[in-house]
Parts: sequence; structure tokens; C-alpha cells
Amino acid sequence: MTSTFQARDPGFEARVRASFAAQAAMRTIGAEVEHVAAGEVDVRLPFRDDLTQQHGFVHAGMIGAIADSAAGYAAYTLMPADAAVLSVEYKLNLMAPAAGEAFVARGRVKKAGRTLTVCTADVFAVRDGEERLVATMLATMMTVMDRGLSG
Amino acid sequence: MTSTFQARDPGFEARVRASFAAQAAMRTIGAEVEHVAAGEVDVRLPFRDDLTQQHGFVHAGMIGAIADSAAGYAAYTLMPADAAVLSVEYKLNLMAPAAGEAFVARGRVKKAGRTLTVCTADVFAVRDGEERLVATMLATMMTVMDRGLSG
Amino acid sequence: MTSTFQARDPGFEARVRASFAAQAAMRTIGAEVEHVAAGEVDVRLPFRDDLTQQHGFVHAGMIGAIADSAAGYAAYTLMPADAAVLSVEYKLNLMAPAAGEAFVARGRVKKAGRTLTVCTADVFAVRDGEERLVATMLATMMTVMDRGLSG
Amino acid sequence: MTSTFQARDPGFEARVRASFAAQAAMRTIGAEVEHVAAGEVDVRLPFRDDLTQQHGFVHAGMIGAIADSAAGYAAYTLMPADAAVLSVEYKLNLMAPAAGEAFVARGRVKKAGRTLTVCTADVFAVRDGEERLVATMLATMMTVMDRGLSG
Repeated sequence: MTSTFQARDPGFEARVRASFAAQAAMRTIGAEVEHVAAGEVDVRLPFRDDLTQQHGFVHAGMIGAIADSAAGYAAYTLMPADAAVLSVEYKLNLMAPAAGEAFVARGRVKKAGRTLTVCTADVFAVRDGEERLVATMLATMMTVMDRGLSG
Repeated sequence: MTSTFQARDPGFEARVRASFAAQAAMRTIGAEVEHVAAGEVDVRLPFRDDLTQQHGFVHAGMIGAIADSAAGYAAYTLMPADAAVLSVEYKLNLMAPAAGEAFVARGRVKKAGRTLTVCTADVFAVRDGEERLVATMLATMMTVMDRGLSG
Repeated sequence: MTSTFQARDPGFEARVRASFAAQAAMRTIGAEVEHVAAGEVDVRLPFRDDLTQQHGFVHAGMIGAIADSAAGYAAYTLMPADAAVLSVEYKLNLMAPAAGEAFVARGRVKKAGRTLTVCTADVFAVRDGEERLVATMLATMMTVMDRGLSG
Repeated sequence: MTSTFQARDPGFEARVRASFAAQAAMRTIGAEVEHVAAGEVDVRLPFRDDLTQQHGFVHAGMIGAIADSAAGYAAYTLMPADAAVLSVEYKLNLMAPAAGEAFVARGRVKKAGRTLTVCTADVFAVRDGEERLVATMLATMMTVMDRGLSG
């Protein structure tokens, strides 16, 4: 499926990358932006021992964190240049153990509204060059103007 | 509200603390177990600059991570001694910026079933000794037996 | 727990009852408002054979419908007199078969914001005078002004 | 996207249609099965005045009901012949007013597991031959064996 969204701010990619770079939490866990397009952001998280839960898989909370970032920034690509994005809520289904060399959360805008944007994010585990779906998110993001926030 | 649950394994608190201690991700972000009772687990996360999003508040994904842990371990208190707990899915509503000196996620069992347990987790920001509700989770946890997992 | 909310419109109860009465869908399934207070609305649905799913229990969708109405109107009690309420999203956990003489969805505001209000709704089955929790909802409602809507 | 699922019971379509026909609630609101394939079920709901909310649009609860049925039966297509399907939980995002001549909920299996199946359901409003996305659901369904239930 090709993107059907048109960004109103042509500088959206630089805007997303700058805001993501300002998310200390993403740096702390080692997550990186892998792909940015109108209505689409992919976030990649390499496996690290210090991100696991008690069974040695990556913690569901870390999977949720990269999915939330991917979904939020996918929404942000379509927002005005001076807007900020906030996560209103998200729901994450965990479908398989997060085992792999890396994890890619693919955030996609489902419906962009004036105030609220609905996004999905599928999270895949990468192992030996193969991708396997391990989690999926459905999220609501909010466009915030004039609150002294940006990014 | 006092707890109305009865743990079938009297050693549940030690079991929860041992399993939590094995969650490297919780250690990495600095989260700690603050309270354990039958059907109840509180997880505390002190504020750290390296856990923030682009506006300087704690990242929604980190809030989700401690809420997921609190909810999952609340469910785990009521499981048999040889069971493992897995997160099936969770939904998190973010209601206020996660600003404060620390954050406490209070996981509570709502309904414990044979296979599935439904939990809530309210997350409070602590500032100057006051608590303020910043997020709430509704989650489904699964009791897993005989898969070579424990904890 | 006593309500901690203060309605800004003293006529909120009449406003809720009038709007509910205009919900043809609630009349079709036989649902009624049972309780209205600031931040609180209970909706009651008597059992009817024509609301069941294939196993003879009330359909999860009907349980969701009364929970959505209860949550939405709980939010609506706290809105300005000229506002309209819209459901942004809801999540429903079904915890026991919806078997009973009647079902009561208790909608409660968790956090009322300027634009968005977060609500819960527990749904109880009533049988022989006893109430049993069968479902729980976590929902996001929106205050809408100036769109030619009311109620 | 073509279906990638293989039903283990070749009689799945008749099984789905028989079970749906036993859902009195679907008959009451006038919903019908429009499409059945392995991992896929579409449910259609013609507009009716007696299914509306206070603004004249179809009630969010009714949209949720057909989405839940579509998702649940999509899961059911892949279950063993003697299994029953139960809704564990669902989350619904409402993205546009449910205005139209009819509504089609397209339930699709995202991941089929031994016990739990994760499904999505997009709901479209049909008007003048055009379809418009009005809601989307992410749901967890459960395969139940040996409980005296079928369908």
C-alpha cells in the first residue's frame, strides 16, 4: 500500500528527526528512526540484554515505547510545522515473544483529523533477515497548538 | 478499598520480587517494586532526564512500561507457584504530562480467571509529596503453564 | 467513593436525560438511565432474548453499547450546557458471560479535561438481587463546541 | 492483500453462517453476513432510524457490535469445528460520524494462536456507492473447547 497522505509542511522529515533526537528515552534504549514519509514512521530497536523481561525477551513496555513513538511521529508528519504531538492513548496487543536481533515498529496514520489522529503500529522482530509480527498497536494522537510546546 | 483476593501461593511476594528483579528492563530505567499484596503491585520510577520525550516529560512508553509491569505482577500474585505471566494486551490513557520527582504505577487485579486476568494500573506523578493521576491502564494478562517458563 | 466532581451546568441531569431519550438505539434495545450525578451515569438494560449471541448470553456489542452510553453521559454531566459529547474510542474487557435478569453499566469520569474526558464503565449482571461484574470499559470522550450539535 | 490463512475445518463458512444466524442481537439490529473467507468476515448493517444516537448518526455501540461480530467470526473461521469463540476484549476508534445508507464491518485475522486470536475490523459507511472509513477495531478473541458451547 502506498501512502495516500499529503504532508502540509514540506519540512516534515527534518522536523520528525529533530524531535525524535530530542527524546532522551529513545536514545537511552537505543531506538532509531529508520524511515519517514508522509503518514509513516518506522522506529528500529536493536536487541539489548538490558531491555529484557524475566524470560529473556524484550520487555512489552519497550515494545510499546517504540510503537508509541512510531505512531506518534507518523501522526506528526502530517501536522502543521508549529504543532506539537501528544499521545492521548494507545492499545498494544502482544502476539509473540519479542525475540530477535532487532525490532521495527512501523507507525502508520489511519485517519488524520484536525485535533485527533488515529494511527496503527505493527512491530516486527527481525531474525536472520526474516521479519515476524510480534505486536500491534492502535493509538490516538493529538495535535496541540499554542501551548508553548513544539515537536 | 481493601483487597478481596486470596493468593493460592503463600510465597507470592518473594516470587514477584524475584521475577521483577530478573526484568533487566526495569533495572535499566530504574524502576522498583514498592508494594506487593494479593492482587496488588505498585512499581515506582524516579524521574530521570534520560527517560524523557521531546518536551521534557517522562516518555509515554516508559509510563506504559511501569504500568504493564505493575499490572502483570498484580496478576502474578494470584497465580500458582509454577505459572508464568504474559501480557496479552494493554491500553493506556495518558491524562496529564508525566512531570514529577517520581511516578508510581498501582497495578490491581480486577478479575482473576483460570487463563486470563484483567487488571488496571493507575499511574501517579509524585511532586512535593502530592500525588496526581497522570495515566491509567486496562490490561489483560495470561497464566501460562508448562511452557518451560517461570516467573 | 463519593463523587469529587463539580458540574458547571446545574441543569446537567435534565440535559443528560433529554439527550439519552433522543438516542433511538437505547430505546430499541430497552436501555434506561438509572442514575445521574456529577461525573456519574448508570444505564440499565433488562435481559431480552432478542439481544443475545449464539450461546444465549447478551451480545458483547450490546454490553459495549450501554457501557459506551454510560461513559459518554458521565462525561457529558461535566460539560458546558451548549456542548455535545462524542465517543473518541473505547476499550471493553468481557470478563464473564452476560447472564442475568438485567445489566447495569456504571459510567464514571476518571479525568475531565478541556477537550478530552477519560471515563470508566463497569458492567454488572443482576441475578436474584446479586450483582456480578461481567465487563469493564476504559473510554475517551470529546467535548465538541460550535459544530451545530447539541447533546 | 489476499488472505494468507488456511482454515483447518473446510466447513467453516456454513459454521460461521449458522452461528451468526443464532445471534438474535444481530437479527434485531438488522445486520447480515456479507462475506466469509478464511480469516475474513464482513458484516453489513443497513441504516435504520431506530439505531441512532442523539445526533442522528448510528450509535457507536451499534458500530461496535457489528465490528465485534465481524472480528469474532473472522477468528472463528480458523478454529476447529467443535470450538466456540468468545470475545475477550475489543478497542474501537470512532473516526467519523456514522452517516450513510449502510455500514460494513470488515473483520480480519491478524494473528491466529492456539488460545487467542488477534483481529482487526474496519467499519465503512456506504453512501452513493462510495465507502468511507468511520471506525476501526483491534480485538482479542478466544478459542474455547470443551465447555459445552459451540459456535
